Amino acid sequence: MSVPNWVQDSIFYQIFPDRFANGQDKNNPKKVLPWNAKPTIVGFHGGDIKGIIDHMYYLLDLGINAIYLNPIFLSPSNHRYNAVDYFQIDPKLGSKLEFFTLLDVAHRNEMKVILDGVFNHCGRGFFAFNDVLENQADSPYTDWFHIKKYPVDAYSPGDATTYEGWWKYKSLPKFNTSNPDVEEYILKVARYWIEQGIDGWRLDVPNEINDDEFWMRFREVVRSANPDAYLVGEIWDGDPRWVGEGHFDGLMNYPVRTLIIDVLNGEITTDKFSHDLKKWQTKYAQENTNAMYNLLGSHDVERFLTKVNGNLGKAKLGYLLLFTLSGVPAIYYGDEIGLLGGKDPDCRRTFHWDESQWMTPLRDWIKKLIRVRKDKVALRRGVFKLLETETHKNCLAFVRVMDSECGLTVINIDNAAMELTVDLSGTPLAAYKSLRNVMATEEYQVIDKKITIKLQAVSGVLLFPY
Amino acid sequence: MSVPNWVQDSIFYQIFPDRFANGQDKNNPKKVLPWNAKPTIVGFHGGDIKGIIDHMYYLLDLGINAIYLNPIFLSPSNHRYNAVDYFQIDPKLGSKLEFFTLLDVAHRNEMKVILDGVFNHCGRGFFAFNDVLENQADSPYTDWFHIKKYPVDAYSPGDATTYEGWWKYKSLPKFNTSNPDVEEYILKVARYWIEQGIDGWRLDVPNEINDDEFWMRFREVVRSANPDAYLVGEIWDGDPRWVGEGHFDGLMNYPVRTLIIDVLNGEITTDKFSHDLKKWQTKYAQENTNAMYNLLGSHDVERFLTKVNGNLGKAKLGYLLLFTLSGVPAIYYGDEIGLLGGKDPDCRRTFHWDESQWMTPLRDWIKKLIRVRKDKVALRRGVFKLLETETHKNCLAFVRVMDSECGLTVINIDNAAMELTVDLSGTPLAAYKSLRNVMATEEYQVIDKKITIKLQAVSGVLLFPY
Repeated sequence: MSVPNWVQDSIFYQIFPDRFANGQDKNNPKKVLPWNAKPTIVGFHGGDIKGIIDHMYYLLDLGINAIYLNPIFLSPSNHRYNAVDYFQIDPKLGSKLEFFTLLDVAHRNEMKVILDGVFNHCGRGFFAFNDVLENQADSPYTDWFHIKKYPVDAYSPGDATTYEGWWKYKSLPKFNTSNPDVEEYILKVARYWIEQGIDGWRLDVPNEINDDEFWMRFREVVRSANPDAYLVGEIWDGDPRWVGEGHFDGLMNYPVRTLIIDVLNGEITTDKFSHDLKKWQTKYAQENTNAMYNLLGSHDVERFLTKVNGNLGKAKLGYLLLFTLSGVPAIYYGDEIGLLGGKDPDCRRTFHWDESQWMTPLRDWIKKLIRVRKDKVALRRGVFKLLETETHKNCLAFVRVMDSECGLTVINIDNAAMELTVDLSGTPLAAYKSLRNVMATEEYQVIDKKITIKLQAVSGVLLFPY
Repeated sequence: MSVPNWVQDSIFYQIFPDRFANGQDKNNPKKVLPWNAKPTIVGFHGGDIKGIIDHMYYLLDLGINAIYLNPIFLSPSNHRYNAVDYFQIDPKLGSKLEFFTLLDVAHRNEMKVILDGVFNHCGRGFFAFNDVLENQADSPYTDWFHIKKYPVDAYSPGDATTYEGWWKYKSLPKFNTSNPDVEEYILKVARYWIEQGIDGWRLDVPNEINDDEFWMRFREVVRSANPDAYLVGEIWDGDPRWVGEGHFDGLMNYPVRTLIIDVLNGEITTDKFSHDLKKWQTKYAQENTNAMYNLLGSHDVERFLTKVNGNLGKAKLGYLLLFTLSGVPAIYYGDEIGLLGGKDPDCRRTFHWDESQWMTPLRDWIKKLIRVRKDKVALRRGVFKLLETETHKNCLAFVRVMDSECGLTVINIDNAAMELTVDLSGTPLAAYKSLRNVMATEEYQVIDKKITIKLQAVSGVLLFPY
């Protein structure tokens, strides 16, 4: 019941299905927007499952071996966080057969696929909620929700007052998960898709289902259907309560994302960064730390490149950190080609399939990081340890150590070039004569268990002895 | 593409699933009513698919070989004419597996099963309508319905004004079947369940989809999936337009039901009855006349026994007519045990499984009629012909002739006993020396091609030569 082995070896790619690729027009919704139009709250761009299948070569070439798909079940919205039927693929995305084809193509290429499980709330079109609207107090499903008053009013303007909605949204009726029938329904959904072949669930706002027993049973059901399924919770603040045997293998690691962005933007010092990073890298059991879903972007936040003002150097440093810290690196679709985007819905722009629009150096950098991470077990499973640097203002050095393998990351976030000396004592690296920057070509001599590195402004290296 | 052979050999039994039998409590809706409680507009009694399977012996013993099931797809109402998902069995009735088991058990016993296809309108929880409510004018599904005005208002009190609802009901949004996407969806549903093994569709208010091309394609899709599928339309007034190659094999024969009830109740003379009956028995091609769905009761009208004021004699005469006229006799569940019931919802009372409450003579009569009809091809496929009676006031005689086989029905609806002489000239019966009442034991001599029969008040005979 511990973390599945494959998780730590994964490079995740998050896909917002309406925006990644449009594989066929036949399932385009009516009124589909032009592919390159700016995203709106309600508009559809026509991305679909066929599009993902068709671009599998792109993901494989990049080095991806795990996909996290934003919701794909039947829903009236482009984000699909208001599900109408948890057993159906939205026809605007394609058929169940196409989804199974995606799973098949992925698995034949050693790629995992996890789905977004939104079990805290549903959409107003969900059958049990519709039943309440139709039958009001007579409905057999009144205790599937938190009804406060009759008649239940779901469609007039304003906040939800007659029932509990997520963030008071009328459109998102909250499930009463303490009702055993609701729990049974949710567990049936969880088991069904695992049995159909998905490799895990990303759980949406699971802390709003504030019930350890519920999640214990959820985990049991999923793991008994597939002992190798990955469970990752969307817990924004990070909290050991949600990590481990009774809950999730990892969390979406927003705190570390915030630290990385803050330090790159000079909002916090490297001291503060190091201090907090250490805290986050030791907060959970080692295997869970290594199974955190580490991200720089997602459908819920501004694009990473936008957060660093389009600065390529900062972006590269961000990914260097993402790929060398403990935890599973995850790329939000398009971040690797330099997509920009402000807050939702702008962070959900469509992917550019015209390569002339790509920020190629960034993509090459990420592709290289993926190859290195796949090559070096220390980056995937090693222990994190900060090292002392003589000039540590705006600089940072840390190693990941796994048995005799050890990798050293050194970064300079200053706007000036800097020469720094790193003490390798206590690491396997001290025994070597020289270290090589695997992201480029240069070598550094180890002298007296120390190395001295000259780093350009806003840059970093990743050193291994071979 | 003509009428499937099995149809004319069928004895249909119509089941309103919530009210026939409760096979298991586990799928009872919350707040289920006691089985014997009076029906209400919104209440559930817990009938289910398992209940039908469990009572298959009852249907087989009665002699039934075809079932027409009222709607069983996911829906918030007990009648389920407002479907939320045409591909799902309502969980209050059971699982898809249980439905397939029902089909299997039925088919192993040479019993057919047809479903109620409600394609003119859906429920407000149907995904495409929910999408319109969620996205309003931006919805990709606005042209799946007849939207008149935005915002679409589906849940405030009063008639539907912002869109077209069946009979202005907000709860029943009418499909825009001239939209090819809608047609494709409906045809997909039609094909799916045929492919799953059902033996035909009873089409709900099909004349409200006033589109011959649509029904032509519907028929093609169904028949190409199963050339032996029966299509029967709910056309209350009867109309040759809806019968034949491009439409349905038969119609629910309400006009003949009305005639039978009216003549039994003395509202029309036997002359008028004979005249109109002749019209209805010759209105359609012979094979379609023989494939009409002949009924005395349904979920939409007062129970037959209630219509004849609980009079057993009249009831028996009604069934004698039903089983000897051209067309497929259909029994509305419980009518055979003498269930009473006024207009909807009262006509949807639960079946009595306590035999002490049965009107046994009626059930025995019907069971006998079923056996005779199965035995006599003339009753199933013969040509209908009225005969002259010397005393014809309140009396009626007709034959069904198939090659050399011929059966003679004679009824007296008068409150006094009557002796009448029937002229058998021009029928195969004229050649025999005597005729036997197959519903009892008595024999009648044929003298001079005539027979003289003494009939008690409100009674009838069914005569065959052997």
